Amino acid sequence: MHNLGVLLSGRGSNFLAIADAIDAGKIPDARIAVVISNLADAPGLEAARQRGLNAVAIEARGRKRAEHDHEVVAALRSHEVELICLAGYMRLLSPGFVQAFSGRILNIHPSLLPAFPGLDAQMQAFEYGVQVTGCTVHFVDEQLDHGAIILQRSVPVLSGDDPHAVAARILEQEHVAYAEAIARVLSGKYEIVGRRYLPKK
Amino acid sequence: MHNLGVLLSGRGSNFLAIADAIDAGKIPDARIAVVISNLADAPGLEAARQRGLNAVAIEARGRKRAEHDHEVVAALRSHEVELICLAGYMRLLSPGFVQAFSGRILNIHPSLLPAFPGLDAQMQAFEYGVQVTGCTVHFVDEQLDHGAIILQRSVPVLSGDDPHAVAARILEQEHVAYAEAIARVLSGKYEIVGRRYLPKK
Repeated sequence: MHNLGVLLSGRGSNFLAIADAIDAGKIPDARIAVVISNLADAPGLEAARQRGLNAVAIEARGRKRAEHDHEVVAALRSHEVELICLAGYMRLLSPGFVQAFSGRILNIHPSLLPAFPGLDAQMQAFEYGVQVTGCTVHFVDEQLDHGAIILQRSVPVLSGDDPHAVAARILEQEHVAYAEAIARVLSGKYEIVGRRYLPKK
Repeated sequence: MHNLGVLLSGRGSNFLAIADAIDAGKIPDARIAVVISNLADAPGLEAARQRGLNAVAIEARGRKRAEHDHEVVAALRSHEVELICLAGYMRLLSPGFVQAFSGRILNIHPSLLPAFPGLDAQMQAFEYGVQVTGCTVHFVDEQLDHGAIILQRSVPVLSGDDPHAVAARILEQEHVAYAEAIARVLSGKYEIVGRRYLPKK
């Protein structure tokens, strides 16, 4: 059984999509061992409890990043987490955190990286006037929104769209893409060549 | 009749695609008034002559950019060019050139801008490990590969691909996209809101 750890700061719609995908058998031999938030009042924590999952708040406010991360890493280890899924976790990970779980931290970003890293990627893309955007599931490295790409899905931006419509269209793809990417990584049937994700038979 | 001016430095495969699209009636009421190259031996010039088009070499070597551009602008004006299409023109346009034809210069770039501007965009995308790339037709402004986007088309990068396969897949879409974008601009039925291209009825 693969133990997943989910980190979130908000409602965690991607967390719920991962949990649903596990329930539906789309991520074989996996369970969510723990959900951790830096905010005690994150709605995603309550949603985790309602599903009977371990939900832990580790408040970051007023603490140094390395110190807070150290505690998060300890909680992940105590739940024997194999793979960490960031799901709207609004904090940068310290280098020590990344190195402690090297190649075992995933993030999803609402753009076709390397375009539009950082906050408000959907709005950035809308305002730039792109006609194709999407989402990216990638390994987390020490740089923001930068690690090797596991999966990308594209969506169109239509002339009648407002930013909300674009964001909703991307989010729908995020929910599918994240579960698929997790299943890919847990299968172990891949290699990273340079920065390229290549499936192995 | 809309007079197009094509600028190229190489074989001009996008020039040939535009010429074919005109012959096929896909760009209504348009003709290529002149093809100009900064290199006298550009194969695209010879191809233009074979099609009975005006083909002009204006050598750039050893000349100042503004001076060379001044001569190119004069040639475009003498052929009463309404819209300029860059088709593998391997020179940056001077600000004076851009301003002389403001909003009337198009370029096609082999990536989903703003990702991978500059040279060897297909190889940049391949090495970054993206799974979606494509091409962009955009207005030319004073910044490299930066103006408002008229049309983007996406293509997948597959795990068995080499860079050549990716480039060929993009080029196929370029040939369709450029003709469509030219027809859109010549129709005049659009507005640019911020950076967004929006069709008008």
